[in-house]
Amino acid sequence: MILTVTLNTALDITYRVGALRPHASHRVSEVTERPGGKGLNVARVLAALGHEVTVTGFAGGATGRTVQDRLTDTPGVVDALVPVSGATRRTIAVVDEHTGDTTQLNEPGPTISAAEWSAFQEAYVDLLASVSAVALCGSLPPGVPVGAYAGLVRAAKAADVPVLLDTSGEALRRGVAARPDIIKPNAEELAELTGSHEPSRATQDARRRGARAVVASLGEDGLLALAPEGRWRATPPTRLRGNPTGAGDAAVAGLLSGLVERLPWPDRLARAAALSAASVAAPVAGEFDRGAYDELLGQVAVTAEVTAA
Amino acid sequence: MILTVTLNTALDITYRVGALRPHASHRVSEVTERPGGKGLNVARVLAALGHEVTVTGFAGGATGRTVQDRLTDTPGVVDALVPVSGATRRTIAVVDEHTGDTTQLNEPGPTISAAEWSAFQEAYVDLLASVSAVALCGSLPPGVPVGAYAGLVRAAKAADVPVLLDTSGEALRRGVAARPDIIKPNAEELAELTGSHEPSRATQDARRRGARAVVASLGEDGLLALAPEGRWRATPPTRLRGNPTGAGDAAVAGLLSGLVERLPWPDRLARAAALSAASVAAPVAGEFDRGAYDELLGQVAVTAEVTAA
Repeated sequence: MILTVTLNTALDITYRVGALRPHASHRVSEVTERPGGKGLNVARVLAALGHEVTVTGFAGGATGRTVQDRLTDTPGVVDALVPVSGATRRTIAVVDEHTGDTTQLNEPGPTISAAEWSAFQEAYVDLLASVSAVALCGSLPPGVPVGAYAGLVRAAKAADVPVLLDTSGEALRRGVAARPDIIKPNAEELAELTGSHEPSRATQDARRRGARAVVASLGEDGLLALAPEGRWRATPPTRLRGNPTGAGDAAVAGLLSGLVERLPWPDRLARAAALSAASVAAPVAGEFDRGAYDELLGQVAVTAEVTAA
Repeated sequence: MILTVTLNTALDITYRVGALRPHASHRVSEVTERPGGKGLNVARVLAALGHEVTVTGFAGGATGRTVQDRLTDTPGVVDALVPVSGATRRTIAVVDEHTGDTTQLNEPGPTISAAEWSAFQEAYVDLLASVSAVALCGSLPPGVPVGAYAGLVRAAKAADVPVLLDTSGEALRRGVAARPDIIKPNAEELAELTGSHEPSRATQDARRRGARAVVASLGEDGLLALAPEGRWRATPPTRLRGNPTGAGDAAVAGLLSGLVERLPWPDRLARAAALSAASVAAPVAGEFDRGAYDELLGQVAVTAEVTAA
């Protein structure tokens, strides 16, 4: 069983409209809804790969009920979200039918009380007893202390559970100092953490800050990994067009499943890069094109690099 | 007890954002939700005036549950919405914090099945037995026959319940032919019904088509009423700035409460015009500024007009 943590869960709603014009009235032609937040996307990809996954984080209000109803309908995913009094946030992606461009509206989400945060931490420690790995994913909701991920990383390490951290900003900076097994920043998050826009130098700096392994997702340039065992670059063969939202979450699922299956680093990276590329070809985050994945998996080029310093 | 019918109920959501820019990502700073659809707005105003109101129409899915939960919390309003398998639609008003301009996104709403429409008609006839007046409000959802309001008007008349119809297009055209006691078109709806953009001529034409009384809401020009008892114009003293959504619904509540209280036409019209103006000063449809209403009520000018033809 793998555990994913999504403190800032959401109901992701997609509207298709003819063309979005400010100050006009629009008839929405199609509405789709799915559970959202990075850890839930990771969980769906893991479940599709055949892993059993438990999801935790917070759920509240009518929107939270809808998220939980949808999770119950997802094979392989166990819902262990912790109830809160506030309402789970919605995100609305307004897709222009002609251009495919998306306008995003993100609700702020509920403020988590001290008692709710405390209840979550207890539930989390209980869950750690029966899982083989944990991923801590996404931003922190209002009310949760900025050092939250550092505490969750330490609890995982105390329980001997490998922990992957995928967040940004100050939450990432503090979390890294607690020495997670893997972090998976994108180029921007890595630069913000380290102050360096040069990925090779920045991954080394991120390791010095506490991460045991750093896997940077560099968009079309694939993945750059720096671990105690070595340094690799994984590059997908083709640049797929589509929706890049969720590509990072698919990569996290690839890394985590590879870790649990004790794959060597190059195989983990090939899987992560192929899943990431195949998720770009899928219409929504947390899904991937199975045919594209199977085809891409053998075509990802993983090359060992010599460490510069 | 007054009955209002809202076949196309909604959950009205308002988002405040800095400035809406297509293809950008926006943080929503404030979220408000309330039951929506014209008949529910009318019901809230009637309840605020001290009338007991029953609301019917359709509710389904998680959004429908939220609408019903909110109605239960509204004093004076009894929820008699009929369950449907589809999900009640959401409408999203994105308000630009700087300009106050609104961009509207309207979901299509569920398709009503023949069995659901039949269940509604039975519930409606049962409700008619215990009410003193009924308002039929708003557009028809997919699946409901375009002649729906004509049937509902006839059922009300058969039960000796005065009926007010507030809709548009073909639903209005068919409904008028069934001889409702009052219709309350705005200028555009009246012109579409009659083919005339001259309100005086158009109200006469609308009566010839079957309406016993016609009260046209002409925005800042107030109300123009043509009834068997005479012809009046009701004009509010000042032009209030604000949100015109719901001004027509407030006018309907004024007309309906005046009818039930057996007020003479000039008093009904003064109330409707004052409520309408006072609702413009309130931030959301279905509410009105009580102080503004009390002040405006004595200041509305109601003048009898001589019928031209």
